[in-house]
Amino acid sequence: MEKSRRKFLQQTALAGTGLALADVSSLLANESDNKNKETKNVTMNNKLIKSKGYAGIDKESPLKSWDFERRAIGDYDILIDIKFSGICHSDIHVIREHWGTQKYPQVPGHEIAGVVAAVGQKVTKFKVGDKAGVGCMVNSCMECTSCKNGEEHHCETTGMVGTYGASDPTSPSGITQGGYSNNIVVTEHFAIKIPQNIDLKYAAPLLCAGITTYSPMMKTGIKKGDKVGVIGIGGLGHLAVKIAVAKGADVYAFTTSSDKVNDIKSFGAKEVIIVNGKQDQLKPLFGKLDYMISTVPYAYEMSNYISCVKPNGFFTQVGQPINGELIINNFNMIFNRVNFNGSLIGGIPETQEVMDYCALNKIYPQIEIIKADEINGAWDKVVNKQARYRYVIDASTF
Amino acid sequence: MEKSRRKFLQQTALAGTGLALADVSSLLANESDNKNKETKNVTMNNKLIKSKGYAGIDKESPLKSWDFERRAIGDYDILIDIKFSGICHSDIHVIREHWGTQKYPQVPGHEIAGVVAAVGQKVTKFKVGDKAGVGCMVNSCMECTSCKNGEEHHCETTGMVGTYGASDPTSPSGITQGGYSNNIVVTEHFAIKIPQNIDLKYAAPLLCAGITTYSPMMKTGIKKGDKVGVIGIGGLGHLAVKIAVAKGADVYAFTTSSDKVNDIKSFGAKEVIIVNGKQDQLKPLFGKLDYMISTVPYAYEMSNYISCVKPNGFFTQVGQPINGELIINNFNMIFNRVNFNGSLIGGIPETQEVMDYCALNKIYPQIEIIKADEINGAWDKVVNKQARYRYVIDASTF
Ligand SMILES: [Zn+2]
Ligand SMILES: [Zn+2]
Ligand SMILES: [Zn+2]
Ligand SMILES: [Zn+2]
Repeated sequence: MEKSRRKFLQQTALAGTGLALADVSSLLANESDNKNKETKNVTMNNKLIKSKGYAGIDKESPLKSWDFERRAIGDYDILIDIKFSGICHSDIHVIREHWGTQKYPQVPGHEIAGVVAAVGQKVTKFKVGDKAGVGCMVNSCMECTSCKNGEEHHCETTGMVGTYGASDPTSPSGITQGGYSNNIVVTEHFAIKIPQNIDLKYAAPLLCAGITTYSPMMKTGIKKGDKVGVIGIGGLGHLAVKIAVAKGADVYAFTTSSDKVNDIKSFGAKEVIIVNGKQDQLKPLFGKLDYMISTVPYAYEMSNYISCVKPNGFFTQVGQPINGELIINNFNMIFNRVNFNGSLIGGIPETQEVMDYCALNKIYPQIEIIKADEINGAWDKVVNKQARYRYVIDASTF
Repeated sequence: MEKSRRKFLQQTALAGTGLALADVSSLLANESDNKNKETKNVTMNNKLIKSKGYAGIDKESPLKSWDFERRAIGDYDILIDIKFSGICHSDIHVIREHWGTQKYPQVPGHEIAGVVAAVGQKVTKFKVGDKAGVGCMVNSCMECTSCKNGEEHHCETTGMVGTYGASDPTSPSGITQGGYSNNIVVTEHFAIKIPQNIDLKYAAPLLCAGITTYSPMMKTGIKKGDKVGVIGIGGLGHLAVKIAVAKGADVYAFTTSSDKVNDIKSFGAKEVIIVNGKQDQLKPLFGKLDYMISTVPYAYEMSNYISCVKPNGFFTQVGQPINGELIINNFNMIFNRVNFNGSLIGGIPETQEVMDYCALNKIYPQIEIIKADEINGAWDKVVNKQARYRYVIDASTF
């Protein structure tokens, strides 16, 4: 009963109330008020880890430099010296409370790549010096069917524990703190092995942007010669293009930014469609694509895009709009016969898979390295669609 | 090019403009203004058919008795003496311009059952005296791939021609006129053979309510032991329950009307869930059903219903809300992993199939027979959810 209640909370995010992803976990893991708890150390034999990063301090102020502590390294934990950390649009949505209320200070960031600096006594997956990454989650129950099937993000009991903003009794600050910082302590299971042959700066964005687009494309089974549409060519979208191209698909990229055309062609897209407000550009493609994925993180006119998919095909919305709400026109749906669905990142095994796949096939995000004090400016550019295509923070500048 | 433009118009119903089903066809078939054309007879050797029915005269007035003419019987046409005609919620949406502007007078009705009174020279499918029915469409191009595949409702060139309100140069009134009348002239292909062993009054509702729910359930492949949810137990929904039960499914029926419970159990439902405004009743079913179909013809809070479907299952919305718009919450969709789709009636072969299946298996709609002068009152009851469960007009009273 408790199980089903939690599952309900997790699965529905309480329709219409704007409960956020991170907030779902926080609500589940610990219902007491963790605010202002400072040094709660539930691990035993080691000392807390000093950490330095950039944190949101409320829903509107610029992020600020912040010194904080992480839990001591437990038996199954690793300490990662973070080298690079990607900036995801979700970071902005969460800290700005677009998806629900938050606790502060909160360090965002869930595209984390670094080097293992210490390991707990029982760690077997990593040794000091290994390259390691952390994506969108840092814990789950590990006992339910989903967890056992490598779908930790769909954990049926506690729900996944988000990398930042989730209530976490093991964290001195009471909530998980993310990757805009110089180190992180994480259970080894939730760390991803980063192959030697990919630069850490390229590996970071694969941990959210990569897996979020890879997972639904693999689930739908895109194959050589398929016509795959990608809507919104930003951090997620440009990786979706590159991954689909690598899988042999003919990629149709949809953007509202005409200055992105040459870049997108260089990513391997077969066609770049610049869509204006009236969406006239979509009509010739109605019923033509095998599959579409939308990374647009705001509410938008979806209907004409959805109608580009062939009857009985699938359209996946991975971009999460403010409060989650999108309008779907059922007149279109009864005629276009497209199946609409959403998709949430991927499990740990699949995150490892996309990391290995991109390393092997040299699928690298197109990034711009910034310093810590450039984060706030970068956020503005992400919101204004000026990112080309992923900002990655050099963690040595924290 | 022309083809693709038409396809676009047909498939999208112009997102957000509220273009109606019937109106799509009207827009495509003839863009000239047919209003006030009185006696345009494009068939040759016969005379127009006098007809008497009930018509909408504008978007708000009560329907009124109306004498009008149908086209003469062409070589491939049959004349059906209508015996019974069902009242569908769509009739109200169309005549009340909830789905787009209309031409008047317009006789609604697309659940038509009667007896063949005359046949054209080249008719082979029917002979005088046969039982015959007409559903939601009366024509299509018959040449495109969809038409050749028996999916005339998804005709790629002209679009399907709706049974009422669609521009029709063969009709003396300029538009197709539906089944709230004592006869109809229709191309034999678009008439359904009604088996001897089913009463015409029971056959009528199968031609819209039956096929609209049967088609998506067959497409999704519901099978013995599947848990099937049906939302909204009115004209469509109660037939969905009966059909799913006949197919061996465990049916979960969702209604807001507590006084329907006994009826719904008598239809064979395993569980009847009375849902109130907060929808608390849905939570125990999250992730439990193999498939759901919603017949609710208004915008409603869909999210919790959708979450009742198992991950990777399908949810079909066949009820069409005013202007088609429904809100979908993508926070739910990324967690519940359900595929949302729509469905539009079914093709002629499948409509024949559901007719034969229901006749064979004695699946009869629960109906209330009314006279012509009770139509307006019945419409009010349909809107107020007081229909139990389908009003069927005795056509001898026109
Ligand atoms: Zn992200
Ligand atoms: Zn779990
Ligand atoms: Zn109908
Ligand atoms: Zn056709």
